[in-house]
Formats: sequence, C-alpha cells, structure tokens
Amino acid sequence: MKRFVVETHGKEELVDITSSVGDALSSFGISEGACVVFCPHTTAGITINEYTDPAVARDLIRALREVVPAGRQWQHLEGNADAHVKASLVGTSALVGIEDGKMALGTWQGIFLCEFDGPRTREVWLKTIS
Amino acid sequence: MKRFVVETHGKEELVDITSSVGDALSSFGISEGACVVFCPHTTAGITINEYTDPAVARDLIRALREVVPAGRQWQHLEGNADAHVKASLVGTSALVGIEDGKMALGTWQGIFLCEFDGPRTREVWLKTIS
Amino acid sequence: MKRFVVETHGKEELVDITSSVGDALSSFGISEGACVVFCPHTTAGITINEYTDPAVARDLIRALREVVPAGRQWQHLEGNADAHVKASLVGTSALVGIEDGKMALGTWQGIFLCEFDGPRTREVWLKTIS
Repeated sequence: MKRFVVETHGKEELVDITSSVGDALSSFGISEGACVVFCPHTTAGITINEYTDPAVARDLIRALREVVPAGRQWQHLEGNADAHVKASLVGTSALVGIEDGKMALGTWQGIFLCEFDGPRTREVWLKTIS
Repeated sequence: MKRFVVETHGKEELVDITSSVGDALSSFGISEGACVVFCPHTTAGITINEYTDPAVARDLIRALREVVPAGRQWQHLEGNADAHVKASLVGTSALVGIEDGKMALGTWQGIFLCEFDGPRTREVWLKTIS
Repeated sequence: MKRFVVETHGKEELVDITSSVGDALSSFGISEGACVVFCPHTTAGITINEYTDPAVARDLIRALREVVPAGRQWQHLEGNADAHVKASLVGTSALVGIEDGKMALGTWQGIFLCEFDGPRTREVWLKTIS
C-alpha cells in the first residue's frame, strides 16, 4: 500500500489528486489490474468527476451544502455532522482499472479528494490488485 | 478490459445492463474473483438496485431530480451541472463478486447505467480481478 | 466468498459490522489484498463512517430521511421506494484494503450495514482479492 498526503485549504474543497495517483501507480510497476483509491477519514471522501472545468467541483460542493445543511440540529456535537453525511454520499473510495501501467479513466474524468471539514492534512491510501 | 456500448434515449434514464455484463463475464472465462463495472463518463454513473419493478428506477431518477434541481444557478455553464452532481451521488462504478463464473448478485439486484445527460452513446468498461 | 447474517431491529438503522468483517477476514487467512463488503439487498447498503460516536449514524439516517422523504408520491407501490433510493445514495458495497492480514481502515472508520426498510434478516457477502 502506498500513501500520500493532501493539504486542504478550505472548509470544503475538491482537490484533484489524479496526477498524484498516477505517479504512485508508476512506482508500483503494475501493468494490469485495478487500483483502490481510499480515503481513511470520515469527514472527507473520494469521487471521480470532470476535471477540466473547476466549476464542476464548486457546483458539487454547493449542491451538497444545500442537500445537507451544516446549520441544522445534529446529534453529533463536534460541529461537523454535515461533513460525515457528505462523506457517505460521495463515498470513501474509488476503484480504477489499470491498463498498460496506466489508469483507465474516461477523457474528462479526474479523481478528487473531497474535503468537507478542512482545512486539514489528509491521507490517501492506494492499494493495487493485479 | 472489455467495453460495450449503451445507447440511451432520454435526458435521464436507468438502463439495465445486467445481462450485458453477464455476457461479457462469460467471455472472460474467470470462475472466481470480482468484476469492476466502470462508467468512463462524468454525467452518468453506475448503480445496483431492484430490476423487477421498473418503477424503482423511475423513482430514483425523480428523487435525484428533486435533490439536485437542474434549473438552479450553476457555475458550470454547459447546462448539465446537475448531471455531474448526480453522477457523484450514485458513483462511477460497481464492484460485483464472481462465483463459479457467474456474478454474485442478490435475488432482486440488477446493474444499471444511470444516464443523467442523454440521449448519448455511452460506454461501460469491465475489468475482472481474479 | 463468506457470508454472515445481520438482524436489524428498526425501520432504519446503521449496524456496525466492522468486527464481523474482521473475524471473517481472519478465517480467509489472506495477508495482502482487498476485501469487497457487499450487500445483496436493494433496500439496504454499506457505508464507512465514524463508529465512536453513535450520533453520527443517527444523523446520517435523519439527513437521508429529509433528502428522500418516505411520504411523497412514489411509482413503486411496495411502500419502500425511499429505501431503494437511499440504498443507491450510500452504495451497495465498500472496498477495504488488507495489510498484514488486517483491514486497512482509518482511525475513526467503521463499516456499517445501512438498513432502510427493516426490521429484517440481512446478509453481508465478503469477497477477498489477493
């Protein structure tokens, strides 16, 4: 398993980690298989979406904010209950195929760490399966 | 990796791809392992849900439409920002076990391509892990 | 593939299955790889979230109830259409890495069966990939 660190800078932010995942994959030296991109946190997640227009990431954050309002009454008293819910909605991991040593992603797809309770120092774990 | 094409016919539509996935799996000839069903698009996704009553798929589409209204103000200006958000909510892939050469699905489970910005010609990518 | 049973007690409930998954993994005897935690039902799902404060699970249930109201008009006439939608939102499976024979989970992460149409007898299927 490989791990790398992502520093987030806002309360909510989508960080494009596609190239970091790609670099780590190169060091695995696996030509065929799949890679699990795993977020070991409970107020952040992983999603795959369009990376060319940063507005897509901002729209996703804003839509989730409306779906799960931070300011309602929550039982979890640490002030980040909404972040936990958002993490379960986008999910904790993504699974990407590996072909000829490279990630098999669609033309417009990038892999994002979804920060919902930052800024923080986050980790991403990568596990390859051949 | 195997790929097959799915033609969608509406703006939003759930297409049951269970048998297409099963046919492709047969051609892999793998008896034990798992299969990644991956959508290489950013305005469509993959989900597993009930296939016997088509009303379930229609309810899912309508519920998502209410959760992520298409007509609000979005920063992404291609007119399909809602589709990007819905794709992240249902997710880009499903992972299904393989037992005795067959998909290990529950009695009522089918695999669906979720079209959120159709009609389009979509691809589904399958990667098996043994 | 290993299977174990989970008895749920409420209409909606998050059941922490982390230790059950861990016990099953020990019996596989796999030291390196990944494990698919799969829910073979269409009105329940699997999520990974914080396990130390049970309020997080209750908040997730309540938030989903507001996002997908049970009492609206649905086309699916079995009275559990909302449960189907919630299952697609949290997802049908989780994928967890295995390191030195143990699940690679973050400090605060637990694995939950999400019951949305209980009480019922549910199954969880585990498939390891090495």
